Amino acid sequence: MKLNDIGELSLVEKIKKAFGFEDEYVPVPIGDDAAIINVRTGNYAIATDVMVEGVHFDTSLVTYYQVGFKLISSNVSDIYAMGATPEYVLLNVVMEGRRNEEDLDDIIDGIKDACELYNVKVIGGDVSSSLSGDFLSATVIGPAQVGIRRSGASVGDNIFVTGHLGCSSAGLDQLKAQGQTLNVRYGDPSINGMDADVFECIIRHALPVARDPKIYKDDVKSMIDVSDGLLIDLKRLCDASRIGAQLYKDRIPVSKGALKIAGSLNMDVMDYAFSGGEDYELLFTSKRDEIEGCTLIGEIIEKGFYLSDENGNRSEVLPGGYTHF
Amino acid sequence: MKLNDIGELSLVEKIKKAFGFEDEYVPVPIGDDAAIINVRTGNYAIATDVMVEGVHFDTSLVTYYQVGFKLISSNVSDIYAMGATPEYVLLNVVMEGRRNEEDLDDIIDGIKDACELYNVKVIGGDVSSSLSGDFLSATVIGPAQVGIRRSGASVGDNIFVTGHLGCSSAGLDQLKAQGQTLNVRYGDPSINGMDADVFECIIRHALPVARDPKIYKDDVKSMIDVSDGLLIDLKRLCDASRIGAQLYKDRIPVSKGALKIAGSLNMDVMDYAFSGGEDYELLFTSKRDEIEGCTLIGEIIEKGFYLSDENGNRSEVLPGGYTHF
Repeated sequence: MKLNDIGELSLVEKIKKAFGFEDEYVPVPIGDDAAIINVRTGNYAIATDVMVEGVHFDTSLVTYYQVGFKLISSNVSDIYAMGATPEYVLLNVVMEGRRNEEDLDDIIDGIKDACELYNVKVIGGDVSSSLSGDFLSATVIGPAQVGIRRSGASVGDNIFVTGHLGCSSAGLDQLKAQGQTLNVRYGDPSINGMDADVFECIIRHALPVARDPKIYKDDVKSMIDVSDGLLIDLKRLCDASRIGAQLYKDRIPVSKGALKIAGSLNMDVMDYAFSGGEDYELLFTSKRDEIEGCTLIGEIIEKGFYLSDENGNRSEVLPGGYTHF
Repeated sequence: MKLNDIGELSLVEKIKKAFGFEDEYVPVPIGDDAAIINVRTGNYAIATDVMVEGVHFDTSLVTYYQVGFKLISSNVSDIYAMGATPEYVLLNVVMEGRRNEEDLDDIIDGIKDACELYNVKVIGGDVSSSLSGDFLSATVIGPAQVGIRRSGASVGDNIFVTGHLGCSSAGLDQLKAQGQTLNVRYGDPSINGMDADVFECIIRHALPVARDPKIYKDDVKSMIDVSDGLLIDLKRLCDASRIGAQLYKDRIPVSKGALKIAGSLNMDVMDYAFSGGEDYELLFTSKRDEIEGCTLIGEIIEKGFYLSDENGNRSEVLPGGYTHF
């Protein structure tokens, strides 16, 4: 059945039913003019992110389930990047009326699985039709302690990053080359004979999991999540902190899968790593020299933006990455 | 200049500059991965609303300034409808790259004027391009006491509404008949020789001001804001409260302007009042018989949904109103 044929009231009922819950700290959950949450005195982090069809996603390459899952991950990533804990989410779902009910069901499933993963609860939202293209946004809120800002870096800090860079954009290129979606859900082990390293990149693109810095966040001086690409997001951190940075090119963590995809598609894997975007890795600075599970990729300097090779030669770089407009 | 030519970084700078402020309760304002707000223990209301080009607005009939203003009003209206006080807002602005910088400036101006009116502060958001059509959404949060729900109505309550119903939809029809925008901003007294009553309806459509129930909210048992039309929104309140309603047809407040527009366009003014939508009036129930500035339009009964005329004859009504999909 098409969304047009279901009607708004039934859609709202469907969404309320999918996300209803009882919780003493949520006196009014989804379904009223606004939700009411009960908070404790202190700091709360709140962030919002949008996903626009044709700009952030293409349903010939990712499934609606994956779109819903990524919507939550990208918002949670912003909350984690402040050193905060996501708790509640509000959704806006705008879809063309000609979409199928199953498409909305898939989005809801993806959102639910991601919410379960991050232990966040949907408390409200809005639905609307659109004339052209689908549009999703989410707002996530949760308790923070101090709030780790982009502006806290100082000269001498080491620069760290979680996971691998460029994995997601390599995965996207692989999906484009294959010309079809990989119909997997979160936790699905099936790789159907695909190369495991390549599979990892596709999953990083289609079902990214946000990084929680909780075990090392007390040692973090400044932080940002890498959503538009390493160079542009590092530049944002540098600008906010009014300092410069030097990256060690040979220490940038790239995955085997990204190397394989770059090789097969005749791409430079460092382009993926530097400006691929949608990594949802955390980029942060610390006085420590080593942090488990993270890679030291550079250092904060007084000014300028440099890349140094294994011989210590350094060259200035211009930050490139994905920008809207 | 087109938004495409300005670039995202400059756009983000523009928005940060427009909405930057310093406040001891906002340790991290707009410009980081997330905002950090400092809250007091208790209940907070949080709501989100979306405005989609071609569905919620048509820029041949309303200005971008008015779109921005209404975005905030519609969200604040949801917060007021819980008996809460709006405090902070997050924005998502998605526009086609071919739009002019002036269009974005106008949206920002409309948002700023509305934020000043309601004393709310913009603390964050996201911007993106779109392939087709503009989308805006906002999330508003602020302290609530108990939270006035839709579900609090009981048999014997009187039903009240603020302002006039159908004014906004009559104003929209008038704009359609004129085929052009009325380029006025909030507080602009100029009506350029237009009939003052008709002008009032157009303003109610283009620049709606949300109703704050603070002086009578302690006497309110249940409340909803009228966004899709009196009948459909009253039905929502009735369903949430598991009761019925009887409306007094002759007491439904319609404005002189709506009567004039309905007359000139050969429309039934009661269609505007019952199912016009976008009224942003408050619809609520109370044990009181009179509330200053509000009109008593009906009573809560055990079940069913009726309209009674001045002779006491009643007929069952089917709720109609604007629904997406």
